[in-house]
Amino acid sequence: MKIICLKTSLLKGVNIVLKAVPVRTTMDILECIYINAENGSIKLTANDMELGIETVVEGSILEEGHIALSARLFSDIVRKLPDNDITITTDENFHALITCEKAKFNIAGRSGDDFVQLPRIEKQQHYAISQFSLKQIISKTIFSAASGENNPIMTGEYFEFADNTLKVTALDGQRIAIRKIELKESYEPAGIIVPGKTMNEISKILTDDIDSEVSIYITNLHILFEFDNTTVVSRLIEGKYFDVVRMISSDYNTRMVIGKRDLQGCIDRATLLIRESDRNPIILSVRDSAAELTVQSEIGSMDEVIDIDQEGSDITIGFNPRFMLDAIRVIDEDDIPVYMNNSRTPLILRDDAGTYTYVILPINF
Amino acid sequence: MKIICLKTSLLKGVNIVLKAVPVRTTMDILECIYINAENGSIKLTANDMELGIETVVEGSILEEGHIALSARLFSDIVRKLPDNDITITTDENFHALITCEKAKFNIAGRSGDDFVQLPRIEKQQHYAISQFSLKQIISKTIFSAASGENNPIMTGEYFEFADNTLKVTALDGQRIAIRKIELKESYEPAGIIVPGKTMNEISKILTDDIDSEVSIYITNLHILFEFDNTTVVSRLIEGKYFDVVRMISSDYNTRMVIGKRDLQGCIDRATLLIRESDRNPIILSVRDSAAELTVQSEIGSMDEVIDIDQEGSDITIGFNPRFMLDAIRVIDEDDIPVYMNNSRTPLILRDDAGTYTYVILPINF
Repeated sequence: MKIICLKTSLLKGVNIVLKAVPVRTTMDILECIYINAENGSIKLTANDMELGIETVVEGSILEEGHIALSARLFSDIVRKLPDNDITITTDENFHALITCEKAKFNIAGRSGDDFVQLPRIEKQQHYAISQFSLKQIISKTIFSAASGENNPIMTGEYFEFADNTLKVTALDGQRIAIRKIELKESYEPAGIIVPGKTMNEISKILTDDIDSEVSIYITNLHILFEFDNTTVVSRLIEGKYFDVVRMISSDYNTRMVIGKRDLQGCIDRATLLIRESDRNPIILSVRDSAAELTVQSEIGSMDEVIDIDQEGSDITIGFNPRFMLDAIRVIDEDDIPVYMNNSRTPLILRDDAGTYTYVILPINF
Repeated sequence: MKIICLKTSLLKGVNIVLKAVPVRTTMDILECIYINAENGSIKLTANDMELGIETVVEGSILEEGHIALSARLFSDIVRKLPDNDITITTDENFHALITCEKAKFNIAGRSGDDFVQLPRIEKQQHYAISQFSLKQIISKTIFSAASGENNPIMTGEYFEFADNTLKVTALDGQRIAIRKIELKESYEPAGIIVPGKTMNEISKILTDDIDSEVSIYITNLHILFEFDNTTVVSRLIEGKYFDVVRMISSDYNTRMVIGKRDLQGCIDRATLLIRESDRNPIILSVRDSAAELTVQSEIGSMDEVIDIDQEGSDITIGFNPRFMLDAIRVIDEDDIPVYMNNSRTPLILRDDAGTYTYVILPINF
């Protein structure tokens, strides 16, 4: 194989597929980036067996072939080479010579035949969404998915297509995040659970381009995303997702509308007095159109009063400040409606249009 | 004690004295910032027994007094309070009430009487240098000081005043860094060893202001720096510094002048093939007005040729790439003269004016 690519193009491609290179693995070959220069296009691929990414890089093929190169070393070399044409030449012993201007690197590679290719996906059930919207809806929900492995379904995000809407849900047993957006077209209904890790990695390679479309294809076992020159394939999580609608009450005894900045600043300060291990709650007392937030801990105490719009009865309720911060950080609106029933039922942050719903379990105090 | 300070002023002062708060200590009181509001000025102090910093903060004293507050907690609180007046009120039990707008913090402090005050320094032997120059001369030498504690003298920087020059030297047994600058006035000669840690911390609070002067006072045991509203006091390292002039040969067999960017890019790339634990050298071969740099390691091999000006005989010599990178990073000039004798004597990077001298021991290969 012999190819020539501009450093910038090659580096862009390498950075994209790196997201699917596993940090730890028992299969050495998965720590490689697979380069395939056949049929007129140069493709880079990485695959951690759950998530696979393939991207096409611009360049010239002087001799067809394929090779697998250590992802970390190869990406470091490309990153540090001068901003010029990079030539990669491989021989029958899988040695790669990488040259750029007067720099020459010799590194050992592995046969491209050893690489685990991405699964072939039938492109039938199709959905479309802009890169911007997909990136947004991921970042505004993903933090609520569970990171542990106790319940695999909780580590995923639930994607629900119905007519012209996409609803994404993530929950970890103590909180729920739901976002809904309208799509340009209507689609046949579908509900799938995508691994949280896939969503995290894909959101890192999506751009904020509102005019660039991501094509999504779904099969029983996989989801495939196509955008720019890149294809991302991920396994789905098997099982039935939670009946979230039933979990969220639409009744309420207290509704307050609170300023996002005031609430965020106050909770941010309050967390100074809470050690991660202690899990002290912040106590919220709503009365006389004011929200008083207080913390008591070994370290000290804090209280702060924020003016609000109050509707309904007075209430005192405790909550985990980190969960509240996570939710309000991703709400763009200045004023946030919060719904409460009593001190043992969840706080619900929800706008009237149903664009966002964040549910946070209370903490006893 | 009761004082009112603008958040910005207080935070600036806190960030300055934080540099002298020890990360680990057996004396709890040293983890505090001492606030003294007496005689019309508000002073913050921190002291790790080797290095002490005191700074004056603008504000109003409503009631005189002093207190010691946990440096980490107090600085976090100040950082997160709104951008407005902060009021600190203490009571006879050393509780501090910190308020700003509608936020109120209550934290426990300690008696100011427990704090270990800075040593009193006789301001006799005086030197002056701009903040910019002091910051520069530290950053361009400090990396060559030893970080371990095998030889305390090696962990320091040697400050040598003679007439109107200041020469600063740092060495760790494998390399030497020397910088010389002219001062505005002539001073009586002095040679002192200042702890590297002091120099590191002071360089972080110095500004790049070329017109702002640092006053330096030296006694047998201490050095004192005064600038802006801040005083830094440090113990000196006792002992006699090395006779560095004798270590550096002015003879040479080979002189090359090499482009800084070419050399830096090449070594930066070459280090990709060197694991920190392996200590493989980079091999430099100078001949025919070209410098060939090569690396061989388990990971792979690299070579690269750089055009140079060559004077004298051909030579092949090995060196530690990190030491070379450290030196060339802080040389501002585009072309760097390098002097060599043979493969067992040091490489010397030195300009004709004697502004900088960087000496690097060779590595056998």
